[in-house]
Amino acid sequence: MDPMTATPGRHMTDEISQQPAIFADLLAGRDAIAEVAAKIAERRPRFALLAARGSSDHAALYAKYLLEVLLEMPVGLTSPSTTTLYGAQPDLTDVLLVSVSQSGGSPDLLEVTESGRKRGALTVAVTNTADSPLNSAAELSVDIRAGREQAVAATKTYSATLLALYLLVDAVRGGTGADAEPIPELAATALDAGQKVVDDAVRRYRFAERMVTTGRGYSLATASEAALKLAETSYLSARTYSGADLLHGPVAAVDADTAVLALCSNGRGGDSMREVLDVVHERGADICAIGSAASDVHASHRIPVPACAEELAPVLEVLPVQQLALGLALARGFDPDSPRGLKKVTRTR
Amino acid sequence: MDPMTATPGRHMTDEISQQPAIFADLLAGRDAIAEVAAKIAERRPRFALLAARGSSDHAALYAKYLLEVLLEMPVGLTSPSTTTLYGAQPDLTDVLLVSVSQSGGSPDLLEVTESGRKRGALTVAVTNTADSPLNSAAELSVDIRAGREQAVAATKTYSATLLALYLLVDAVRGGTGADAEPIPELAATALDAGQKVVDDAVRRYRFAERMVTTGRGYSLATASEAALKLAETSYLSARTYSGADLLHGPVAAVDADTAVLALCSNGRGGDSMREVLDVVHERGADICAIGSAASDVHASHRIPVPACAEELAPVLEVLPVQQLALGLALARGFDPDSPRGLKKVTRTR
Repeated sequence: MDPMTATPGRHMTDEISQQPAIFADLLAGRDAIAEVAAKIAERRPRFALLAARGSSDHAALYAKYLLEVLLEMPVGLTSPSTTTLYGAQPDLTDVLLVSVSQSGGSPDLLEVTESGRKRGALTVAVTNTADSPLNSAAELSVDIRAGREQAVAATKTYSATLLALYLLVDAVRGGTGADAEPIPELAATALDAGQKVVDDAVRRYRFAERMVTTGRGYSLATASEAALKLAETSYLSARTYSGADLLHGPVAAVDADTAVLALCSNGRGGDSMREVLDVVHERGADICAIGSAASDVHASHRIPVPACAEELAPVLEVLPVQQLALGLALARGFDPDSPRGLKKVTRTR
Repeated sequence: MDPMTATPGRHMTDEISQQPAIFADLLAGRDAIAEVAAKIAERRPRFALLAARGSSDHAALYAKYLLEVLLEMPVGLTSPSTTTLYGAQPDLTDVLLVSVSQSGGSPDLLEVTESGRKRGALTVAVTNTADSPLNSAAELSVDIRAGREQAVAATKTYSATLLALYLLVDAVRGGTGADAEPIPELAATALDAGQKVVDDAVRRYRFAERMVTTGRGYSLATASEAALKLAETSYLSARTYSGADLLHGPVAAVDADTAVLALCSNGRGGDSMREVLDVVHERGADICAIGSAASDVHASHRIPVPACAEELAPVLEVLPVQQLALGLALARGFDPDSPRGLKKVTRTR
């Protein structure tokens, strides 16, 4: 047996640690992204659509906020089945269609992209596989350059996709990605400094069975990715609500048996989480606050993250989330590198 | 104490039973909806946005499929925070903005609607409160005429919103709502005939702790609403995945401890669920199939629903889902009429 695969979580551990270097590489090569951005800016699209599945769908959710706030465009996340199952043929003139996929090989995204291009959309593929079918199908493409990912649970490809999408959108508005320059160093700090508080969190949530993840604005993407990562690797049934939606009813299901993972970063999204967590705290839930504003909210456990521009916070916030998913999976006896082969341990509760 | 509130679930029971009559009333008054539709058709919007929170967000998801498939428009679900927190001011010329809210009083939807109207969108409010602030803010409005809802968990207002949205979209494409004519009678049949199999399902899932809900196409809205309803009333931690997304990774978290509520109706969405449920079945999960195609898939328990046009199936499918949420809440000792005041029983597992 390959000794790399014999150690549970070896690949995920390794891929988490590669992220600062991947971010530095992406920044160093951002001229290629700026060229794609210039072509998008030239076409002046009026609406944007995003197509993705799984973790990439959360990267697409992040891009939705970037496009809506920084470019002030109306944006939709596509429902691929309306094309693949129902054969809808909308007129996509003036539409920017961004397809996000690590592998670039998902047949439904390929069909959405091919069909969108035929119907007038400016198509852009964002992938980790420069020679993928999706790259060929799209008019433009962005390579996230994260290197091959061996763990089944996406980590480095998720965060590299976020950074690539930020650089793309920032360049469309004429930016140079300056706010992103500190990200590689801040990421290294977050991973090093975060490990100890994450280890404490692993001990604290080792036996948690019910988890809710929540965030607002840009950080809603991180909350969604956190729930998926925990479901995939740690067998946790976690549900995501935007901070606003949580107060509209689901807070009824939050009580002292619930661990609430709350993303709280400096900025307007994080500010608005304060009142959400006041209510959650009153209901007796255990709150694990993650982010640069974690110290400003009601929480039972805090995982601080270095501060950066608000729209880049998801790139850093997800790092301790990955460490937590990895740590919880190992503590619970699962191998996060190949969750489908998980051997179930007898659960102690 | 009001004897109506003294019986747990009295309001929810009553409101579930009113639905066939509400559907008949909506159909009888569909000329008012057709007038709104004619104004929309005249303006020929190119892109649609939907704004909603909570259960209404699932009605908006249903409308997204209707608009994408029946009108072949690109559609986005709004993220209200990009307006309310981040102050984005997109150009919404040629955009149809539909705001869906039972009460019509949600401040963020009001702000999104007012701001959207100023920026050129054709605004339509769909509410159960004809004199609401949202109705005043929007240029056009549709009254779902469901009568006052007393239970905290939305039932009749959800299904009436679906039917109103169907009648609206069908009328925009020049339809007369003919496919919806059998809905009141089919709804009465579904509620009567369904109760016994739902009672069996309540016994079967009385002690379930982990639940996943899934569907594809139009029925994804029902799967999402099912998870919310169960979280609000029965304290179940249920997570929703589209059938396609489920196979992209989260199926790893599905095993013999998981109950999977699968929406399977006649049509393309339901057809594509067959292979999803083959995989879920192999993983040993307990499948509860709900819908007119429930008999065609792998399942441990089936709740059949009368057949109708595929795009109307969500109006009927949600009826046994509501009965199941009500039944499970009562069996577990909660009052679904006022979930915030729920007294926790000692759980027996």
